[in-house]
Amino acid sequence: MITPTTYIKEIDQQHTDFTSRLSISTLISLILGTAGQDANNKGFGIEHLGEVNCTWVLSRFAIEILRLPRAFEKISIRTWISDVNRIISTRNFLVEDEGGEKIAEVVSQWSVIDLAERKAVDLTKLFTSRSEYILGALDASTSRPKKIPALGNATIQTHIARYSDVDFNCHVNANRYFELMIDALPLEKLKHEKPLRVDLQYIQECYYGDELTISYEERETASLFEITRNSTNSAAVKCMITW
Amino acid sequence: MITPTTYIKEIDQQHTDFTSRLSISTLISLILGTAGQDANNKGFGIEHLGEVNCTWVLSRFAIEILRLPRAFEKISIRTWISDVNRIISTRNFLVEDEGGEKIAEVVSQWSVIDLAERKAVDLTKLFTSRSEYILGALDASTSRPKKIPALGNATIQTHIARYSDVDFNCHVNANRYFELMIDALPLEKLKHEKPLRVDLQYIQECYYGDELTISYEERETASLFEITRNSTNSAAVKCMITW
Repeated sequence: MITPTTYIKEIDQQHTDFTSRLSISTLISLILGTAGQDANNKGFGIEHLGEVNCTWVLSRFAIEILRLPRAFEKISIRTWISDVNRIISTRNFLVEDEGGEKIAEVVSQWSVIDLAERKAVDLTKLFTSRSEYILGALDASTSRPKKIPALGNATIQTHIARYSDVDFNCHVNANRYFELMIDALPLEKLKHEKPLRVDLQYIQECYYGDELTISYEERETASLFEITRNSTNSAAVKCMITW
Repeated sequence: MITPTTYIKEIDQQHTDFTSRLSISTLISLILGTAGQDANNKGFGIEHLGEVNCTWVLSRFAIEILRLPRAFEKISIRTWISDVNRIISTRNFLVEDEGGEKIAEVVSQWSVIDLAERKAVDLTKLFTSRSEYILGALDASTSRPKKIPALGNATIQTHIARYSDVDFNCHVNANRYFELMIDALPLEKLKHEKPLRVDLQYIQECYYGDELTISYEERETASLFEITRNSTNSAAVKCMITW
C-alpha cells in the first residue's frame, strides 16, 4: 500500500530562538532536510540524480505554522508527493507534535535541472518508474505557494555569500536566504507566538562571493522581502510572511 | 554502572558544505546540542538550572577532527563529564562513524552563572547530588583547550548580531561565532580534507544588535581569529584552527 512516510525529529535546544521556541528557519531547514532524506531513501535523491548529472532545485515553498515547538519536543514530519508534471514535482508535508496536534503544513514545488545545460528536465520521463511514490489523491490542506507582490519603498541591507551560506553546489542554501530575510525584521515582530504563513519563491541561484541586497517592506498584514543578486541586478528570492 | 551516554545523529544533506562533507560548524553544533540533551536527560540541563535562575555558559572548547562525514551517514556522539571543580565542569565527547572509526574528539569546559548577578556559581555546591554522573577516570585523549595567541596584523570584517544569530538569552549562539570566523577564511583553506584542531575561547557575551568585528590572521600552521564586541572594544571570542 502506498502511504506517506513519517520522520521523527527531536528539537535541539540550540535551534530555539529568543522566545525559547524553535526558530522558523530551523523548522524550514528540518522540513527541507526531510525532503532530501525521503528522496534518498526512495532512490531519487540528489546523489542518484548526480549519477545522470542532474539535481533537485527548490522552486516554491509555502508553510502554514500553527505553533513552534520547544526544546526536546519530538515532532513527526510526514511527507508525500501529490503530483508530478513535466516541470514540477509537488511535495507536501504535515508536521505534528507528540500528542498528534498539527504544528505546520507545507506545500513545496521542485524541479530537476541538468547540471551541464542548467535547463529543466522533463520529470515525467525521468520518473516513469517512480510513479508508485506519487499519491495523487492526497493534497495538503494548505494552499499552493502564492505569487509574491513586488516591493516598493523597502529598507535594504547587503550581505556577501560566505562559506557557511553555501551548499555542495556552492549555491546559497535555500534556508540561508530565509534567515537573511527574517533577520531584516524588527525583533518585536517575532516576539509573540501566532499562526503565520511563509511563501517563498526561488528565482535565480546565487553563488559563493556574490553580493546580495536584502529588501524588506511592511504591507498591511504581510511582511515582504526580496533578495537581489547585485552582479545581475535581478531578483533571486522573494518571500512573504503573512501574520 | 556509570557509563558515558551515546546519542545517534544522522547527517542532513543540507548541513554538508561545498565539499559534500558535514560542515565543521554543524559538527560543533551537533556536539553542543548533545551536551544540552545529555544534561537535560540527567536532570541538570538549562531548564533545570532556570528554576534556580542559573544557566550553563560555555567557556572553552577544543575539537580534533579526523574526517568529516557525508550526507545520510549516522554518527554516534558519546559524552561524559570527567571533572567538576568549583568553577569548571569538563565534558568530553567521542564521535564515531557506523563502522566504529573515530571521527572526532572533544574537550569542553563549562561554568554555571547566576542570571541575576551574572557571576559564576560554585559547581561543587550545586552538583553534590549529581556526582554519579562524573566519570573521573575517563579523560579524553584530546588535550584540553589551548591558550590562543593575540592577533597582530589581521584582516577585519564587521557583522551586526541579528535574530538568527541569537539564542533564548538573546546572546549570540556559541556556534554562530564560529561560523562568523570560519567565513573569514579563504575558501581554498577548506577545500581539501585533512585532520584539524579547533580551539575556542568564549570571554564575553554579545547581544542582539551588537556590532562585532571579526579579525583573521594566518600564522604558520594555524589560522587565528578574534571577535571583538565594538561597544566595549574588548575580545568576546577567540579561535585557533590548527591544520
